[in-house]
Amino acid sequence: MNIKTATTDFPINRILAERFSPYGFGVRPVAEADICSLFEAARWAASSYNEQPWRYIVATKADPREFARLLACLVEANQAWAEAAPVLALGVVSLKFAKNNEANRAAVHDLGLASGNLSAEATARGLSVHQMIGILPDKARDAYQIPEHFEAWTALAIGYKADPKIMPEAFKERDLTPRQRKPLNEFVFTGEWGKSSPLVLNRLA
Amino acid sequence: MNIKTATTDFPINRILAERFSPYGFGVRPVAEADICSLFEAARWAASSYNEQPWRYIVATKADPREFARLLACLVEANQAWAEAAPVLALGVVSLKFAKNNEANRAAVHDLGLASGNLSAEATARGLSVHQMIGILPDKARDAYQIPEHFEAWTALAIGYKADPKIMPEAFKERDLTPRQRKPLNEFVFTGEWGKSSPLVLNRLA
Repeated sequence: MNIKTATTDFPINRILAERFSPYGFGVRPVAEADICSLFEAARWAASSYNEQPWRYIVATKADPREFARLLACLVEANQAWAEAAPVLALGVVSLKFAKNNEANRAAVHDLGLASGNLSAEATARGLSVHQMIGILPDKARDAYQIPEHFEAWTALAIGYKADPKIMPEAFKERDLTPRQRKPLNEFVFTGEWGKSSPLVLNRLA
Repeated sequence: MNIKTATTDFPINRILAERFSPYGFGVRPVAEADICSLFEAARWAASSYNEQPWRYIVATKADPREFARLLACLVEANQAWAEAAPVLALGVVSLKFAKNNEANRAAVHDLGLASGNLSAEATARGLSVHQMIGILPDKARDAYQIPEHFEAWTALAIGYKADPKIMPEAFKERDLTPRQRKPLNEFVFTGEWGKSSPLVLNRLA
């Protein structure tokens, strides 16, 4: 079992348990058919009023000019490792409903649902996705002429994870450290804030 | 094939294709073991700086007082159908990083990642989830003493979907209408805003 596979307290589907955000990507390109299926998965996410507020701007290493343009929209610390990924994307969100121009409180949440679907599909295909909030939204707006009411919110590095043994020392450790999460009793409550739900407490060892 | 299964242009995993948001839930309760696995799936979502900004407040019909308290935090239009679900939850988000009290721009997005994982796990188990943005955050704050910097953002109705044939007329139609989404060329761009990515355009029929 991969060191990054979640050590779960309760069983979950493998495409959720095996997902993690690698810092190392191999040179192997992602087939266009796979790229299409990743965005197809995003497409079928739920959204408030079926608004589908997500948009993606995507670039692959096969088009070096576009890849460089997209990479430049990440903060430097993310550029350092994300430049190895064969595919980069920006997650852009429409902050208002198209039909009436009113604020969509669910918009950013629903971008998360779409990108989560994309990540799950990636895991199912042996691919990895590392999402970032560390981007330069204004730079993205200039680079792509992103209109008002839309905003670049996240970036996604997509590819096949590298073998940590051949990764740069600076990032290797991160891809060899087991994943950690709060246990359920710390975030699933019933009845009052901070009170662990008996539904989970009864079953935790 | 269920009428709600996505008609995809590119193949995706069945737990993503079969997910939809029912308006009708059957009376069958959800086993506690399943409830635990749903939140376990949420637990392993990605989040910015591994902040895990999500919290959930959960109630089941087995505890009528808690169920009523949670139901009252939904807008009336959602109460109308969600009261049939055997399990309700609020999705609550920490808007600031615990370590330094700074705003977490990814928080609401990452609640989406967690709830998306929960929904995928539900589909894998034959369960359905209908997420709502239509809730009463201030009422939830009062009801559960949700502290400052946290905010109830979504609700989730969880259960087994009802047979539309025996659903109230008011909701039946919605659960019998095929799902629709924008095609990929309308939201996956390359090079400039609004320009369909050749990566998807080349492969769309």
